[in-house]
Amino acid sequence: MNASNPVALARACAEAMYSRDIAAQELGITVDSVGPGTATLSMVVNERKLNGHGICHGGLIFTLADTAFAFACNSYNVNAVAQHCQISFLAPARLGDRLTAVATEIFKGGRNGLYDIRITNQNGEHIAEFRGASRSIKGAVIAGDEGASAS
Amino acid sequence: MNASNPVALARACAEAMYSRDIAAQELGITVDSVGPGTATLSMVVNERKLNGHGICHGGLIFTLADTAFAFACNSYNVNAVAQHCQISFLAPARLGDRLTAVATEIFKGGRNGLYDIRITNQNGEHIAEFRGASRSIKGAVIAGDEGASAS
Amino acid sequence: MNASNPVALARACAEAMYSRDIAAQELGITVDSVGPGTATLSMVVNERKLNGHGICHGGLIFTLADTAFAFACNSYNVNAVAQHCQISFLAPARLGDRLTAVATEIFKGGRNGLYDIRITNQNGEHIAEFRGASRSIKGAVIAGDEGASAS
Amino acid sequence: MNASNPVALARACAEAMYSRDIAAQELGITVDSVGPGTATLSMVVNERKLNGHGICHGGLIFTLADTAFAFACNSYNVNAVAQHCQISFLAPARLGDRLTAVATEIFKGGRNGLYDIRITNQNGEHIAEFRGASRSIKGAVIAGDEGASAS
Repeated sequence: MNASNPVALARACAEAMYSRDIAAQELGITVDSVGPGTATLSMVVNERKLNGHGICHGGLIFTLADTAFAFACNSYNVNAVAQHCQISFLAPARLGDRLTAVATEIFKGGRNGLYDIRITNQNGEHIAEFRGASRSIKGAVIAGDEGASAS
Repeated sequence: MNASNPVALARACAEAMYSRDIAAQELGITVDSVGPGTATLSMVVNERKLNGHGICHGGLIFTLADTAFAFACNSYNVNAVAQHCQISFLAPARLGDRLTAVATEIFKGGRNGLYDIRITNQNGEHIAEFRGASRSIKGAVIAGDEGASAS
Repeated sequence: MNASNPVALARACAEAMYSRDIAAQELGITVDSVGPGTATLSMVVNERKLNGHGICHGGLIFTLADTAFAFACNSYNVNAVAQHCQISFLAPARLGDRLTAVATEIFKGGRNGLYDIRITNQNGEHIAEFRGASRSIKGAVIAGDEGASAS
Repeated sequence: MNASNPVALARACAEAMYSRDIAAQELGITVDSVGPGTATLSMVVNERKLNGHGICHGGLIFTLADTAFAFACNSYNVNAVAQHCQISFLAPARLGDRLTAVATEIFKGGRNGLYDIRITNQNGEHIAEFRGASRSIKGAVIAGDEGASAS
């Protein structure tokens, strides 16, 4: 892995982040694929994720999307944090559903990034749509191989 | 508890919802107080809630706020669901912090509701600010004592 | 024009709406193209649109996007209104710029719709990104040729 | 006016901004009051502001709110720009209505600010609710009397 190969760099960042992301591990979130500015993650809705209406807690759908957002905006090995996020809940996610979140970069300029994350279930139904605004901060995701510093 | 006492009704709805909200229980979220259109919930940031940057996962801060939102907008014993939510992350929440989410109703008309949820830590620092739009649907939170049906 | 031709119906709805949309006309907004769930509109930044920083007022960039959103979500000849909108301002729009807003439908189910509107300038620079949630209400855009009633 | 009097400074910033804000002047927006982090502006819905549904164009309601937001976040004589805005439309504004937008600061830290703007009509009805995130940039609103530079 080195910075001259953006896909390898994105993968190395994702591995480093995932190994430290206890919350994502606890929820059974898995990283299906990553690339520069993109990430695909998934999660199964088990009983521990149900809310008072008997469907998947919206907070955990958000958490899946937010994690995909984090992996996408940190894929350049420049630490980035979420500033503002918005989610629209379109259809309920039910016990046993496998949810997949696909993060796409729609803007990157200076320290600012904007990412859309689409959440679907195993039947391709559109469960939720998330938009996140990120900002680069000091530091690298993986030491010794910093990406270009943000301007 | 009966519908002619709005505070008692809100408490009964909260008890019923909490007993079924496995996700909130798993995260150690507690209900500090509820009332008509309001709710105060709290949660401690333990190690299982940390993300890849070593701070509380934003998704779990959202989950705390979203749960307070749910308890506030379901406090009239008319089932309500989240449609759109927005969160701004203002300061990091750290290991050991106790986060408190206070939900306030800022609009209610027809089937639509709008709620603001402020998240602070044990020192009163403003950690995040959440806004949620709800919509009433069919059904009551607790059977046998339905609130006024939504128009 | 009839309801069996969705493109012709979208165009007829756009013509009817534009003829009544005095605000859009006053701002010099023009409709470049429309289709089922889509619309492309544009506007030139003249001196009357500048704000206190000497750049295009963000409210008028929003107004262009919101108008494209309205034309897209009303393209089925079922009256629809904006409920919640979000905009991220990515780069300033300057005097003389021609701004184009392209609206795309990302979800439609029951009475609810979700639309993304991308605003670019004449050089293809990404000026702003807008997301709007719509809800269908009673009535048709053009009389005598109602679309399928919303469920 | 000097920087040691925050109210006078806010007023001086508002006067300077308003004199350059051609868009706000064209829409007949007036500044009712300003203070540190706050602003109250109003506007009458005339025929030129109606949309295709015969009610006030949502973009112009947003523009009123966005202008109040700008005056509030620029009240410290440090240039600030809108980054992300969200609006919920709660009730229609009709021909002849006088709309008032009250901006309140809900967070200020480093270069970041968060402001809520409530829009009501002459009867106190809640027409819309706006939230804006600002970021301080280089420069002062009024020359020769710069506020403390943002950190």
